[in-house]
Amino acid sequence: MREVFHQSLEEIQSRLVEITDLVTIAIDKATRAFANSDVAMAEEVIADDAQIDELAVSLDELAIEILARQQPVARDLRIVVFALRVSASLERMGDMAEHIAQLARLRFPERAIPKGLKGTFTKMGERDVEISRTLSELLRTQDLRLADVIRNADDEVDELHARVFEKVLSDNWKGEPTATVDATLASRYHERFADHAVAVAKKVVYLATGDWAVGDADIIAAAEAHAPAVEA
Amino acid sequence: MREVFHQSLEEIQSRLVEITDLVTIAIDKATRAFANSDVAMAEEVIADDAQIDELAVSLDELAIEILARQQPVARDLRIVVFALRVSASLERMGDMAEHIAQLARLRFPERAIPKGLKGTFTKMGERDVEISRTLSELLRTQDLRLADVIRNADDEVDELHARVFEKVLSDNWKGEPTATVDATLASRYHERFADHAVAVAKKVVYLATGDWAVGDADIIAAAEAHAPAVEA
Repeated sequence: MREVFHQSLEEIQSRLVEITDLVTIAIDKATRAFANSDVAMAEEVIADDAQIDELAVSLDELAIEILARQQPVARDLRIVVFALRVSASLERMGDMAEHIAQLARLRFPERAIPKGLKGTFTKMGERDVEISRTLSELLRTQDLRLADVIRNADDEVDELHARVFEKVLSDNWKGEPTATVDATLASRYHERFADHAVAVAKKVVYLATGDWAVGDADIIAAAEAHAPAVEA
Repeated sequence: MREVFHQSLEEIQSRLVEITDLVTIAIDKATRAFANSDVAMAEEVIADDAQIDELAVSLDELAIEILARQQPVARDLRIVVFALRVSASLERMGDMAEHIAQLARLRFPERAIPKGLKGTFTKMGERDVEISRTLSELLRTQDLRLADVIRNADDEVDELHARVFEKVLSDNWKGEPTATVDATLASRYHERFADHAVAVAKKVVYLATGDWAVGDADIIAAAEAHAPAVEA
């Protein structure tokens, strides 16, 4: 029974990593479609989002099946509940990538990135991709120092988000209302993407330092050192 | 054991209703603060959001405790998992109300509602309040026809959301970039609020028509008649 359960947990973990890898591909393509007005790439992101949604639903079903059949308790139970919550966040991250791609498609053949904000959005996109890639690594390795990397990158995204608003609200902003709307929405999507990743990373740390007893003293020490910062 | 479990389910239900009632108060106050530049009311909404967050966390803990102690299966298990998912949506609805209040506070003493959009935002706010109130009623009574009421109100919110963009992107829009940004964000928050409610309502219907065997033939018939529409 214990052996079966161990396999179930590994299955949950590998599925979370799989979904996160698809989300990484989605945000990478979405930000490139957005930067280059690449409508074909935008269409790919929009079409592929259904797969992320399906995998998230299927992971939820697996989690419910494990709860019903194996009736886990304590740490094992928390891991299964963790999967249920994390799948929802990953699915929303996929939605944010899709929304960015939809903006690119909507404005085609015009550029979706408003003039004067190309550099800012390029950096936001790069940070989001880095965050998603790091999240996959965190879920795969449980190396809790990666939660800190995600938190720092999210701080940068927040700064870039603020910079977008400074720009569109400054006196020398010459953008049309369309550009103002696009900048506002795109910036919000990028920022929410990063927020969801931080929420997942926090849950990984919580599992490791709270109820998920980790057998590696170094990781626990790292978590203790870093948890307050992640929580802030 | 069965009796204890029945009590647990009732406890879950009453807590979901309690949180939804607080969310209803929050969105009602937030939309009034937004309409009237009432910064004191905005502050209340922002301060009270912590309580919604705490109740959602505490409901999650209760759900985990029930899973651990009572190890429910089949329909009972689905109800507990349902609570875990719904609490996250309710918490996000509270966040949307808070964001609307924050916009009101940010622009004070100016009006946060851009000129020419007062009527549209007033209607959106009213629909959101109605949706939240109906959701509470749906969770309390399990009267599945209410899911349809929510879906219809959400359609109206979507139309109002589209009308905001039509307005700010029209040639006769004279708003400053600040007004364009505010309109874009506020409209998005109102729309997301309604979306989360629809997601919860769908889950209620799913539970009732799928795994949550309801002992009332009329309700089942109503659900069968209405489920496809809710799903659309």
